[in-house]
Amino acid sequence: MTNFADRHIGTDSASQQIMLQAVGYAGVEELMDAAVPSGIRAAAALSLPDARSERDALDDLRVLAGRNRVRRSMIGLGYHGTITPAVIQRNVLENPSWYTAYTPYQPEISQGRLEALINFQTMVADLTGLATANASMLDEATAVVEGMLLARRASGSTSNVFLVDSDALPQTLRLLAHRAEPLGISLEVTDFSEALPEAFGAFIQYPGASGRVWDPRSVIEKVHASGGLVVVAADLLALTLLTSPGELGADVAVGTSQRFGVPMGFGGPHAGYLAVKAGLERQMPGRLVGVSVDADGHPAYRLSLQTREQHIRREKATSNICTAQVLLAVMASMYAVYHGASGLKSIAHQVNRLTRLMADALGDAVVHSEYFDTLLVSTPDAAAVVAEAAERGYLLRLVDDTHVAVSLDETTSAHDVETVLGAFGIDAQLGFKPTAVGVPESLVRTSRYLEHPVFSAHRSETTMMRYLKHLADKDYALDRGMIPLGSCTMKLNAATEMAAVTWPEFADIHPFAPDADTSGYRDLIAQLEGWLAELTGYDAVSLQPNAGSQGELAGLLAIRGYHLANGDTGRNVCLIPSSAHGTNAASAVLAGMKVVVVACDDEGNVDLADLRARVTEHAAALAALMVTYPSTHGVYEHEIRAITQAVHDAGGQVYIDGANLNALLGYARFGDIGGDVSHLNLHKTFCIPHGGGGPGVGPVAAKAHLAPYLPRGEANPISAAPYGSPSILPISWAYVRMMGPDGLTRATGAAVLAANYVAARLREHFPVLYSGDNGLVAHECILDLRPLRDATGVTVDDVAKRLIDYGFHAPTMSFPVAGTLMVEPTESEDLAEIDRFIDAMIAIKAEADAVAAGQWTPGDNPLVNAPHTAESVVVGEWSHPYARELAVYPAPGQIHAKYWPPVRRIDQAYGDRNLVCACPPIEAFAQ
Amino acid sequence: MTNFADRHIGTDSASQQIMLQAVGYAGVEELMDAAVPSGIRAAAALSLPDARSERDALDDLRVLAGRNRVRRSMIGLGYHGTITPAVIQRNVLENPSWYTAYTPYQPEISQGRLEALINFQTMVADLTGLATANASMLDEATAVVEGMLLARRASGSTSNVFLVDSDALPQTLRLLAHRAEPLGISLEVTDFSEALPEAFGAFIQYPGASGRVWDPRSVIEKVHASGGLVVVAADLLALTLLTSPGELGADVAVGTSQRFGVPMGFGGPHAGYLAVKAGLERQMPGRLVGVSVDADGHPAYRLSLQTREQHIRREKATSNICTAQVLLAVMASMYAVYHGASGLKSIAHQVNRLTRLMADALGDAVVHSEYFDTLLVSTPDAAAVVAEAAERGYLLRLVDDTHVAVSLDETTSAHDVETVLGAFGIDAQLGFKPTAVGVPESLVRTSRYLEHPVFSAHRSETTMMRYLKHLADKDYALDRGMIPLGSCTMKLNAATEMAAVTWPEFADIHPFAPDADTSGYRDLIAQLEGWLAELTGYDAVSLQPNAGSQGELAGLLAIRGYHLANGDTGRNVCLIPSSAHGTNAASAVLAGMKVVVVACDDEGNVDLADLRARVTEHAAALAALMVTYPSTHGVYEHEIRAITQAVHDAGGQVYIDGANLNALLGYARFGDIGGDVSHLNLHKTFCIPHGGGGPGVGPVAAKAHLAPYLPRGEANPISAAPYGSPSILPISWAYVRMMGPDGLTRATGAAVLAANYVAARLREHFPVLYSGDNGLVAHECILDLRPLRDATGVTVDDVAKRLIDYGFHAPTMSFPVAGTLMVEPTESEDLAEIDRFIDAMIAIKAEADAVAAGQWTPGDNPLVNAPHTAESVVVGEWSHPYARELAVYPAPGQIHAKYWPPVRRIDQAYGDRNLVCACPPIEAFAQ
Repeated sequence: MTNFADRHIGTDSASQQIMLQAVGYAGVEELMDAAVPSGIRAAAALSLPDARSERDALDDLRVLAGRNRVRRSMIGLGYHGTITPAVIQRNVLENPSWYTAYTPYQPEISQGRLEALINFQTMVADLTGLATANASMLDEATAVVEGMLLARRASGSTSNVFLVDSDALPQTLRLLAHRAEPLGISLEVTDFSEALPEAFGAFIQYPGASGRVWDPRSVIEKVHASGGLVVVAADLLALTLLTSPGELGADVAVGTSQRFGVPMGFGGPHAGYLAVKAGLERQMPGRLVGVSVDADGHPAYRLSLQTREQHIRREKATSNICTAQVLLAVMASMYAVYHGASGLKSIAHQVNRLTRLMADALGDAVVHSEYFDTLLVSTPDAAAVVAEAAERGYLLRLVDDTHVAVSLDETTSAHDVETVLGAFGIDAQLGFKPTAVGVPESLVRTSRYLEHPVFSAHRSETTMMRYLKHLADKDYALDRGMIPLGSCTMKLNAATEMAAVTWPEFADIHPFAPDADTSGYRDLIAQLEGWLAELTGYDAVSLQPNAGSQGELAGLLAIRGYHLANGDTGRNVCLIPSSAHGTNAASAVLAGMKVVVVACDDEGNVDLADLRARVTEHAAALAALMVTYPSTHGVYEHEIRAITQAVHDAGGQVYIDGANLNALLGYARFGDIGGDVSHLNLHKTFCIPHGGGGPGVGPVAAKAHLAPYLPRGEANPISAAPYGSPSILPISWAYVRMMGPDGLTRATGAAVLAANYVAARLREHFPVLYSGDNGLVAHECILDLRPLRDATGVTVDDVAKRLIDYGFHAPTMSFPVAGTLMVEPTESEDLAEIDRFIDAMIAIKAEADAVAAGQWTPGDNPLVNAPHTAESVVVGEWSHPYARELAVYPAPGQIHAKYWPPVRRIDQAYGDRNLVCACPPIEAFAQ
Repeated sequence: MTNFADRHIGTDSASQQIMLQAVGYAGVEELMDAAVPSGIRAAAALSLPDARSERDALDDLRVLAGRNRVRRSMIGLGYHGTITPAVIQRNVLENPSWYTAYTPYQPEISQGRLEALINFQTMVADLTGLATANASMLDEATAVVEGMLLARRASGSTSNVFLVDSDALPQTLRLLAHRAEPLGISLEVTDFSEALPEAFGAFIQYPGASGRVWDPRSVIEKVHASGGLVVVAADLLALTLLTSPGELGADVAVGTSQRFGVPMGFGGPHAGYLAVKAGLERQMPGRLVGVSVDADGHPAYRLSLQTREQHIRREKATSNICTAQVLLAVMASMYAVYHGASGLKSIAHQVNRLTRLMADALGDAVVHSEYFDTLLVSTPDAAAVVAEAAERGYLLRLVDDTHVAVSLDETTSAHDVETVLGAFGIDAQLGFKPTAVGVPESLVRTSRYLEHPVFSAHRSETTMMRYLKHLADKDYALDRGMIPLGSCTMKLNAATEMAAVTWPEFADIHPFAPDADTSGYRDLIAQLEGWLAELTGYDAVSLQPNAGSQGELAGLLAIRGYHLANGDTGRNVCLIPSSAHGTNAASAVLAGMKVVVVACDDEGNVDLADLRARVTEHAAALAALMVTYPSTHGVYEHEIRAITQAVHDAGGQVYIDGANLNALLGYARFGDIGGDVSHLNLHKTFCIPHGGGGPGVGPVAAKAHLAPYLPRGEANPISAAPYGSPSILPISWAYVRMMGPDGLTRATGAAVLAANYVAARLREHFPVLYSGDNGLVAHECILDLRPLRDATGVTVDDVAKRLIDYGFHAPTMSFPVAGTLMVEPTESEDLAEIDRFIDAMIAIKAEADAVAAGQWTPGDNPLVNAPHTAESVVVGEWSHPYARELAVYPAPGQIHAKYWPPVRRIDQAYGDRNLVCACPPIEAFAQ
């Protein structure tokens, strides 16, 4: 019987023998012995449960699911019941064409999801009444923090005070406090009724956590008058009825799009949003989709202003956000596309109408007379009401001894309201016409929104299904072929792993549901944390960070907390090798640290002498070293133990970035080689799909001395929800459970073999830039294209785009070394696909040589013109010095299996100069 | 809030106003008043529950699912637990690209599923050791009947005796008896141990229902010696270890592919199979996929020998099979592709090994010493054992008072066996090496199978996912665009409707599970039967028929039974209008009736005078009239009541074919206009997806006097399973539940409006062949292309294939009138898509006119060369007198949304002359 590991690993033993022969080893173990320095090899076998079959793992998950209890949540606080349209669930969330896609860094093969994301931006910009929205944020609370940081850098005020609405969501208040402190920002919590101190900005929750809706115009004016910017967290559904933040004068709006069709999932994942008024576009964190033109002058989508991204700005970065929540942003945008303005408004009206009817029945017990969907109710024994409602199957929010809050949503029926009223001791039959007023007159929205045709063209399920298919058809995802992205580990996201995500017992749980309702979830989380600790050699794991960047930050904040607790108030220097991921430096800055760069040697390894010099130089101030293992160059460095020892000797902590864990599992553990804390990427090593650029989970794992400083429930928060993005954790749980220790170890061997096979076969065509013992690489290899460029003029970009013509997603470009491609085949690719890639690279090299030989001019050849659309070879005269078929069918077999890119090469500079970040008019696409 | 009907119906009220204007009516009700003769309009409103929301309907289904109890079935009898690989479930069964496809009658846009089906044929032919297999049969029992009929027509024997294995599956025995009787076939049930009478054929179950495996070679020789053919029903998994039927000398092998990854589903759907030895290919019923070549000489798949099909042979047909079980055949074939020969053999070995270990533990109580997966066990109190096993969560088969049968499958573990042994009072710990022999020495399989590369190339989940995507990308299904097939009602298959199909509580139930375990299923079935009865005006409904053809046959057999019960032994004439569906006549023949054709008048209506003459002529022998309403010409005939009255007056029964029910729901009912019995097509009107050519459900509905003769459990069987294909009934249940009476009525109006809009806009370009009152059609319209052919030489085929270039699936070709296209837009298409189709037809007309005008020659123009592949416009010189872009981008917007057909026009005759019905060697596809 075939076990799961044999399905997950793409190369069978026969293929591996062929590959081993090319690399020059008799077996995978011999290869690993030669590649992985003996000094770091794990001493003991992994203590993990043996592999379960796919069927048995699903049965286990059903048992865990059965231990969750789905009661109707009326807790609110930014998490609401919502109806995911089945057509969106099936064709986006359950469709590998969407969920296995990568971040759209290759825009020519990402037009489908880029269109979905520009729909998201348009939706947010319209509803918030602001000029420009990004796509997207990790959750509402982190978006508020980013809003605060934006206000600080854009306001021009010299104050370090940030005013915070006392009616903000409690989890937002907690996160603001934890994030502001290391940055020296002073938070002033206020209800805005008194005189306000000078501040660089203010944060207003709209409507408030209590449900209260009030008109903040005068407060906004006051903050502006003293030079501050105003950040408003607004509920998108409420904005269909309420005057938008932009119209109220806000500078920045943030929030979540969860209630637009994304299940609560015990807290996530879902897409946060951030929008800004005109003039602040270039200050925004996160990704911004914009419109540019392709080589034929056709409009085309791409990520705008990428130079703002952390991988470029490093320690000058103002945000460390990288992975966003693309898949969930796509779902939310499609929810808006499917409902349109009128549908959304009708949902909001129904929610508000039922809330008003409930207020009528509750009478004077309702604290605020103006509200959208949430009532704060005064009651003598709040706990008794909450308990009685729970008995009836409804979860309310216990505010304090004498107050209960009730939030309604699109799933709430009149019957639900009547049942909950019963818990208040009120026996009411709801009428049809509420007498309560609800939304204040001055805040009734009159401006229009979602008027772009895309928000009215797909109102039937048939058209919606076709629109989703049409967009998916434009994109290249793992269901078409290899995505050999170094450092990103684009491996199989197995269908069994994905199965449980949409089960109601995992999907329909509020993050603040009582423990009694969530023991299945918490058991799963505890098991997964235990397994990850065992796999990495650490003592404690927190799954709260909902991206790798957040895991990094949480780890650095834990180091900070540890030093402070030891009285080491002066330890604020973070050493970072020059080859590090850009997020490393950005996270260090956000953790209040000073970045000091450590040099790398010619082999790409940390320069031990320079490290020692920096350690000595900053010994008293040394907080941490951040290092990636295997290195960002894809090499198992020898000196890692010496490096970590040097840092420890000076009183510093060692942060090991887990981005490359796929090269280690089963062979070595961070905790054993000197790491004090690491973040992992479940969306790399542990099979959470990339979703086109998120969701992600970035657990932070640490030794016992740092454990008290990790995010845990409300302590040391790094995300809005206590467990981050729990609804996707069954994916990683299933992966570990089905692979078992042997399968995970085999996967590592297969991944390392695949990378070395690529290196061995391509070395004679492209120099392999770095390697370790015996000339071996780890799980990825860097192909140096600079000699090619020098000899032929053909650039990395040309090769990457030409690979599209051959039917591939390009490897990672110019990271960690400009002018290179970093290839990570992963263990999931089979030999035929790996060979197809290698053959394509060899063929492209030959094409470049032909340019050098003068067969084609540097300005007109298949490389510089790549990628070629179908239109480009069909319509009009063909004037190029190479044949049409060479343009689009360069590799054998492509006539039977061709991926057609929808646009030609996109002009990045044009798009940045002419920033358009909302849906362009239909006419722009006219032929 | 948007209700489901608004999502299901493609045209909103604004669109409908535009369409009504073109047709010339103020509203849909006015249109329907004008189109539907007042004499047939239903008097009363439908008594159906009001519409539920999608969310509420799913909740209801969850409640029903919760009333089923999933115990592990060891009942066997052709239904086995199986593990559906998650990658197949997600990417085939839950993917609209597969399940919304139509039967591959347009092979150029069906290459993906045709390849999957030729894999199925190769798998069956290999495993059965026979030359040619079809794709596919409705279930095993009906396949045995077809095998019997094949033996009768191919054997040359004049005997009317058919020998039947006494160890056959009980449901097969019942179906054989019910089907043989009207045809005058005499069944002789035998254990083959005595001398055999002369017979045209014999049927052997291999292994037997009792689990016994014996060597039938000598029996086969004896039957052959007396001129008979031998049909063997064989278990495909057993055949991986046992000598194949072909090697044993069998002429025909039949069976089911259920245990190859298709859930039991309380009986279905799953794909039966039928394979024959060389020389019998042209005698086969059902669909046969073969290899031919396209216009460029490239190999291409298509349905072979279509002239055999019932729609051509009518009353000379030898089978009435039409809809097969394509989606399930695809799943089974992919299961074989994923496991390969070694994987299947390893599963079989495990099953057999556990069975032998169980036999060891049971000792002398095991009746047969040779078996594959099933043990017949002698025990003093069989009922007590079965009850005890049920208590432990396992369902065994109670054979008689002192015998129990136990069947193992790929889901059975050693723990399961031990638990079941406990029910026999045996406390055993299974060993590792069984001592029992199991398979007889003489039957150990030595021949090889599944050696085509496709059965070893996709062993990892990544490659399997890509293979499924690669095939789906070749095909055109409803997720790309309109499939305006007259008489086929290709409308939305909503994701919510599909959701419950894969829930374990519906998927994992054995058809003979005890009633106590299936009350949810039986409640759902009873409700759906009740709703269908109300919608059609009948008193009783049976959901057992698993295709329309089977519903027809069941209806005619009910008529036959009724006449016989009345002592009317001479009533055997069935009147059928000349315009009828081909299956009508074929079913009548199979019900033992004589077909008499009734003429139609120039308007396509039944010629009332001719009808009356035929009735008079055959009055004493008149069994039935079969009539379709609205007519197969898509017209509401006026005289339907006079027609049915004439038949009733002569003592005949009226069969109304429900193929066109989509034009009636909510407006008229068969039972009210004179129908005695009808079949419906749940895969037309009630949203079961076509699945690329099945599954289908063809309920038979009748007045009370015929009710006793309908299939009901074991009485009057028409399928193997008591309820046919229950696992897809939640689809139709959800449709009716979510539409409610108003929604269903609105859908009918929208469908009729859409057809009339097409007729109104296209009438000036193509004559609309038939119409009724006020020049209106019903839900479809026939475009007469004969004048175009006469004027331009452009044929229906040319237009159909040119529509592919425009991005459409052709309408129904040359049915019911040669030289025409029948267009049924259905209610689910939106106006933009309908207009796109109309515009394409007008543009094609203009192209044909250009040929007539001499702009292009008759031999070289965009029509005769259609469809154009990408290859055809890219590779090599372009020598045609029209531009490349006209070839492939004839319509506006296609540059942004192009469906590329994978092959050019396929040479049908070549394929029939050179019959190749198994996977061709890879080299055939080399460029």
